[in-house]
Amino acid sequence: MNTSPIPAYTPATFGVGARLTLSVMSDNYVRVILGALADADATGLEVHPGDVSTFAAGAEADLVRYLTQVVAAAGRSGAHVSAAIHFSRGCPGEVVCELPDGAGPLAAEIPAVSATGVASVAEWALYPLDDTGRDDVSPDHMRDIYAAIDFARQNGTFEKSEHFVTRLSGDVADVIQTVAAGWILVGRSVQHVTSHVTLSINSPSAR
Amino acid sequence: MNTSPIPAYTPATFGVGARLTLSVMSDNYVRVILGALADADATGLEVHPGDVSTFAAGAEADLVRYLTQVVAAAGRSGAHVSAAIHFSRGCPGEVVCELPDGAGPLAAEIPAVSATGVASVAEWALYPLDDTGRDDVSPDHMRDIYAAIDFARQNGTFEKSEHFVTRLSGDVADVIQTVAAGWILVGRSVQHVTSHVTLSINSPSAR
Repeated sequence: MNTSPIPAYTPATFGVGARLTLSVMSDNYVRVILGALADADATGLEVHPGDVSTFAAGAEADLVRYLTQVVAAAGRSGAHVSAAIHFSRGCPGEVVCELPDGAGPLAAEIPAVSATGVASVAEWALYPLDDTGRDDVSPDHMRDIYAAIDFARQNGTFEKSEHFVTRLSGDVADVIQTVAAGWILVGRSVQHVTSHVTLSINSPSAR
Repeated sequence: MNTSPIPAYTPATFGVGARLTLSVMSDNYVRVILGALADADATGLEVHPGDVSTFAAGAEADLVRYLTQVVAAAGRSGAHVSAAIHFSRGCPGEVVCELPDGAGPLAAEIPAVSATGVASVAEWALYPLDDTGRDDVSPDHMRDIYAAIDFARQNGTFEKSEHFVTRLSGDVADVIQTVAAGWILVGRSVQHVTSHVTLSINSPSAR
């Protein structure tokens, strides 16, 4: 059994971050997207806009607050909006993780959120990518995926399971909280966890 | 060693499919999206439109042809388009795969494609989700991920690695072929493989 202390990783050294692709289906999309990004509170985050996505790195609560504010602001334009968010933790670096397998998980709390008043539907996938944890932690990703789905049922966002994804609905804040919660809960026993969600707001084809 | 023959899975029973969220940043988005979906050749596929994504199930070559045609048609509108594609194989069902772990991989060929004339940039992630393969196959997903990146270098779409993703660029057909190729190559040794890519076309912030 490995009894050495878990190194004191920070969100930055542990590779905690997200990519956001925000799509606004309006001729005014540039103004809406740039406004939403400019007005959101990015305190604590390193943010790099790109031509495919905006990359943000930092602590879970800061990511959830920032992403919720950006997506909700775009939704308040009244336009049909889709937002693809890709969370990652435990694999800083690029093709090869700079953290070795077995560096261990980094625990975090589920961030509290406040409703935005913007309704959304979403499709969500959660990927535990490393079960070769340290000897002194107990990896069990199915346990944590069920815990994530229980969280979604309790906060009212769980709608149903579909092919490849779980369908969520609710306030943008609650949907993003659910996705982050799943990612954080699995991340308590698995080092490298990613999660992808696509939110849809103001869809003309919404039921 | 398990020497029983690998069951004769079909793409349908093996859960081979994709979800596409197509976003068109124009007031005319409904017409562009519905036209792109209607005009594409869906031969061989089961297609279900939804309010978050369009789900398509079927063989790899049919998926690549269909997705390429839909995304390229939207790009030809001249509007800024983003397309989020989520491929999956080896896990039919929903929360729990209907194929047991160790059912084994399902080999497929990399589909040939024809250029569309529509240029794109993209961010791509590839996830081998099961290394507990049958005794008579040799799972080695890092080998196959390197093979996927080699394929991207050879067909000219590889641009660079970034946080959490690989950046690709090129004709929509070549980019989608690259992503499908990576998913297929890893799928030769790993049962359950997903891949997520976001393509961007006609971006005003493209370099």
